[in-house]
Amino acid sequence: MQIGVIGLGRMGGNIARRLMRGGHDVVGFDQNTAATSALADEGIAVTRSLDELAARLREPRIFWIMLPAGATTESTIEALIPLAAPGDIFIDGGNSFYKDDIRRAKACAMQHLHYVDVGTSGGVWGLERGYCMMIGGEKAVVERLDPIFETLAPGHGELLRTRGRSGPVKPSERGYIHAGPAGAGHFVKMVHNGIEYGLMQAYAEGFDILKGKASEKLPEEERFDIDLAEVAEVWRRGSVISSWLLDLCASALADDPRLAGFSGNVSDSGEGQWTIDAAMEEAVPAYVLSAALFARYRSRVDTTFGDQLLSAMRFGFGGHVEMPQ
Amino acid sequence: MQIGVIGLGRMGGNIARRLMRGGHDVVGFDQNTAATSALADEGIAVTRSLDELAARLREPRIFWIMLPAGATTESTIEALIPLAAPGDIFIDGGNSFYKDDIRRAKACAMQHLHYVDVGTSGGVWGLERGYCMMIGGEKAVVERLDPIFETLAPGHGELLRTRGRSGPVKPSERGYIHAGPAGAGHFVKMVHNGIEYGLMQAYAEGFDILKGKASEKLPEEERFDIDLAEVAEVWRRGSVISSWLLDLCASALADDPRLAGFSGNVSDSGEGQWTIDAAMEEAVPAYVLSAALFARYRSRVDTTFGDQLLSAMRFGFGGHVEMPQ
Amino acid sequence: MQIGVIGLGRMGGNIARRLMRGGHDVVGFDQNTAATSALADEGIAVTRSLDELAARLREPRIFWIMLPAGATTESTIEALIPLAAPGDIFIDGGNSFYKDDIRRAKACAMQHLHYVDVGTSGGVWGLERGYCMMIGGEKAVVERLDPIFETLAPGHGELLRTRGRSGPVKPSERGYIHAGPAGAGHFVKMVHNGIEYGLMQAYAEGFDILKGKASEKLPEEERFDIDLAEVAEVWRRGSVISSWLLDLCASALADDPRLAGFSGNVSDSGEGQWTIDAAMEEAVPAYVLSAALFARYRSRVDTTFGDQLLSAMRFGFGGHVEMPQ
Amino acid sequence: MQIGVIGLGRMGGNIARRLMRGGHDVVGFDQNTAATSALADEGIAVTRSLDELAARLREPRIFWIMLPAGATTESTIEALIPLAAPGDIFIDGGNSFYKDDIRRAKACAMQHLHYVDVGTSGGVWGLERGYCMMIGGEKAVVERLDPIFETLAPGHGELLRTRGRSGPVKPSERGYIHAGPAGAGHFVKMVHNGIEYGLMQAYAEGFDILKGKASEKLPEEERFDIDLAEVAEVWRRGSVISSWLLDLCASALADDPRLAGFSGNVSDSGEGQWTIDAAMEEAVPAYVLSAALFARYRSRVDTTFGDQLLSAMRFGFGGHVEMPQ
Repeated sequence: MQIGVIGLGRMGGNIARRLMRGGHDVVGFDQNTAATSALADEGIAVTRSLDELAARLREPRIFWIMLPAGATTESTIEALIPLAAPGDIFIDGGNSFYKDDIRRAKACAMQHLHYVDVGTSGGVWGLERGYCMMIGGEKAVVERLDPIFETLAPGHGELLRTRGRSGPVKPSERGYIHAGPAGAGHFVKMVHNGIEYGLMQAYAEGFDILKGKASEKLPEEERFDIDLAEVAEVWRRGSVISSWLLDLCASALADDPRLAGFSGNVSDSGEGQWTIDAAMEEAVPAYVLSAALFARYRSRVDTTFGDQLLSAMRFGFGGHVEMPQ
Repeated sequence: MQIGVIGLGRMGGNIARRLMRGGHDVVGFDQNTAATSALADEGIAVTRSLDELAARLREPRIFWIMLPAGATTESTIEALIPLAAPGDIFIDGGNSFYKDDIRRAKACAMQHLHYVDVGTSGGVWGLERGYCMMIGGEKAVVERLDPIFETLAPGHGELLRTRGRSGPVKPSERGYIHAGPAGAGHFVKMVHNGIEYGLMQAYAEGFDILKGKASEKLPEEERFDIDLAEVAEVWRRGSVISSWLLDLCASALADDPRLAGFSGNVSDSGEGQWTIDAAMEEAVPAYVLSAALFARYRSRVDTTFGDQLLSAMRFGFGGHVEMPQ
Repeated sequence: MQIGVIGLGRMGGNIARRLMRGGHDVVGFDQNTAATSALADEGIAVTRSLDELAARLREPRIFWIMLPAGATTESTIEALIPLAAPGDIFIDGGNSFYKDDIRRAKACAMQHLHYVDVGTSGGVWGLERGYCMMIGGEKAVVERLDPIFETLAPGHGELLRTRGRSGPVKPSERGYIHAGPAGAGHFVKMVHNGIEYGLMQAYAEGFDILKGKASEKLPEEERFDIDLAEVAEVWRRGSVISSWLLDLCASALADDPRLAGFSGNVSDSGEGQWTIDAAMEEAVPAYVLSAALFARYRSRVDTTFGDQLLSAMRFGFGGHVEMPQ
Repeated sequence: MQIGVIGLGRMGGNIARRLMRGGHDVVGFDQNTAATSALADEGIAVTRSLDELAARLREPRIFWIMLPAGATTESTIEALIPLAAPGDIFIDGGNSFYKDDIRRAKACAMQHLHYVDVGTSGGVWGLERGYCMMIGGEKAVVERLDPIFETLAPGHGELLRTRGRSGPVKPSERGYIHAGPAGAGHFVKMVHNGIEYGLMQAYAEGFDILKGKASEKLPEEERFDIDLAEVAEVWRRGSVISSWLLDLCASALADDPRLAGFSGNVSDSGEGQWTIDAAMEEAVPAYVLSAALFARYRSRVDTTFGDQLLSAMRFGFGGHVEMPQ
């Protein structure tokens, strides 16, 4: 199919490449011309403006927007609407907040435009492994785009089929689903990221406990000096906790078991926060997902005012003086 | 090698089978004769008492003990010691507390016996997939047992080699490690289970949030009725959160997306608790692993006295009356 | 001062009474005429409509709005605006979301009206003990209202003066503060409630652990059958954890140490949720305040889908069957 | 009564003083002679050895041991046993682990000695305000010691009587209780401290959120620059969250609202950890109490290995590079 890709950074560039390699007719655009030249060299048609992009695409046009969520995506969609014709399809492949999708889809529908949101997982490995996609939008429109999703998805691969499934292989078994109306794709992707934080923190705490077992604060006969890279490696095989994240731990620890290249200042995208918001709106307890998010906040500061207040209270009732750190 | 397996239940029986199929000379014993007859039919030599077992094995004997942790394992080891000769090896393959291993290894050493602890992951799938093993004990003894571990382990398999690893394949890459002195094996297995609780709870909360999105408490335009089986399936391919536990979710949800066969009364073995104990001994924050454990406690009661006290306080300061559930 | 009080329910009625007893000229209105008649009997002027109320008050008018946060408060303010004259003051004494205050204050300012938000703590005890008030709005306007706040506040009372304070007694030492511009009052009140949840949950868990010490699951020599009412009582005197909430625990437990009248189905107002939202916006870790909120969510359901999924996974990897509850 | 006080440090010295001022015949001992001379000047009889102390006391002797929990207390009791005569009473007023009390009480009973454990709250304020005491031991023995507890306790004071209580004032209303057999006193005190951690953390998080509201990361119109000392002060009067800990916050913030004298390195005694152990033994969810403990662990390190591992995983799947702190 013919498709315009807007935003050719790390994610968008690889999306464009994988589509091109899959035989689609890709036309790209990025404000940053440095990003576009590499792709042009690889044979992707590149345009210099949204107008030019719109002009190059046959109606009904398909725009895949792969930009930072928030203001950038919003203003791009606003700029595209006047260039679009009834029946055109906007696909937001970034990490937009699902309530923005719901709102935008409504606004697009008033212009007889279609809006599809695609939560995309796969990171820097997607070009090679394919992208896991969670899609929201009108059923007929999502079905029309099937060749695009088919190309981008990882495909069925070597993975054993899930016990309990039979019959023809469904798209979910090739790596993409139509999750519901507009917003549902990014909602599922948001929860995916929320879970991701929780999984990561579970490994982080576990390896912390393994490492701490060598601490000189412990009685000598209860200390173990455990090879963390070996532990991560062995858990990859036959253990209950094998996972792709564990594979990444194994790789990082194989490179350097002390992880000296990392200071432990951990960013978070908005999706962890939105997941907790959703949990609260639904009154679902999310102890683990929230704690995982808070651990990231805490990782980014040396101390908190709250910690200081704890010390001040301890001094107040017990005369306790702080230990030097 | 010749090996005696004590305890032929679900786990021990399969350990014995996998060893036999791997060409080892297995002699079994279980107090429960029902368990033994099936194995006898499959060709495993079965004995009727610990005495008979000890008599059947050539010195230095190897005993693989696969019994419930705690009193049963303890009393069996006590009963074996008088039957053993210097140089014999006791392997505790159950889920013992690692401090018990440290103590037992000392006691065995005084009798010139060797004690090896093996944390074994793999559950009911181990017979087929192999067991991931974390081993504690004297280096020379663990090396002598290598043919046994080699047989029980999953082997290298189809798994991509970890980036950062090169050279000859190490045992960790076939599914077993020598983690340290006695106790280290069960310690690593204990943390494995602690992590397992955290991972499981992260998925549980995530799917809860997905399911809750259909709640009628939400504004109608923000509700999604998401197919959880499809979500679990799609995440298996190319997503950051793919894992074996997710495979199990996918399978369970494929069978019945409402999970009507499960009431949600979730047991815990001691290992989650021991992991938190270890974290506290080391002063390692374990927010996620502890919350995962507490969620299981909470799942097993209808209400808590603490909840009642909250209601009583709310009534006290605000005159709030409880809503009917 | 002359003041119109809109909303004469449990909170608003007592606000009106305390103002009247303090010598203010109170004119009331409530849609529910049952609520008004009691107050009329006590000598408070009562009107039958917002129009009548507006007509009865001298300009510049003061309206104290004490209604459920959200739509009711919003629509009342919308209805009042056309009835108001430049210089009139709207006081929202309910539990509004502080971002609504910021927005409303802007809208009022465009009509030359003043908007003041008052977070009010004190519950059913306020009539007698006075109300602790956290106030947001323009400085000059808040100062003009001082006689009202002075009357409603508890006053300095018998409380020992805070060490470190000297000089003339400030309003904060009589129970009210001007916290900042519009919204700041409700923001501080919101955090107050967030803390309240955390404090309550700390007591709840502690008493749960005390009560659980009698459990037959524990070894007999480690069981204690502790009189919880006596414990709550003793902690009131000289202990580090004495507080008003503890006083309420002591009273509830004195009435019935089993709290049989409470099922443990614990509601939450929006303020706990908003506090977590604020924490996330600021990237402040709020482990305890969030866990306290989640415990309330959990208290209101028998089981969660997440718990069922945990059981399904355990069955999947280990063949574990759920225990009967 | 005549009583020997062993350990005359900050706590023990004040216990001795309050007993002396209450008319009791106090004989003191401390290995540190610097500690004893001040007390000798105040008129307390001081001895130079445990032998001398034992010789100075009339049978049946009463020993109040006020030493650091663990080895010091243990060895002192071991040294006292041979000096004691049947009927003598050992009182452990320190922060011993309640399982140690259970064990010691058994050992004492075999020597016809009595063992009483007293959990003592009140900190540096106890001399003036009195001590809140939670007592474990044989009923008859605890009753015999009543004059001592009566003197040390705060007494009924000005505090309003708990609603629901009537009849004669009980010891709990004067600040001490007999909680149960040996160990019960320290068990109740342990839970008291566990709750204390939770309460403190709730305030800490709340004030953190208030302070963070001035952050430049927030939209300008949503920022508030809140006077934390004023907030703490106002909450003391009429709010639901008034407490002694809040009084201490108010005082610390009145001294310096930035708390510049505190680095936020927060120690913990063993009691928070034991409380979580007890919760786990009873299968009681303790989300808040555990999180409060973990926040202290976290406050004492700059980063955790777990945080580094999170960064390593993020780099692994997304190529994310850490932000400078």
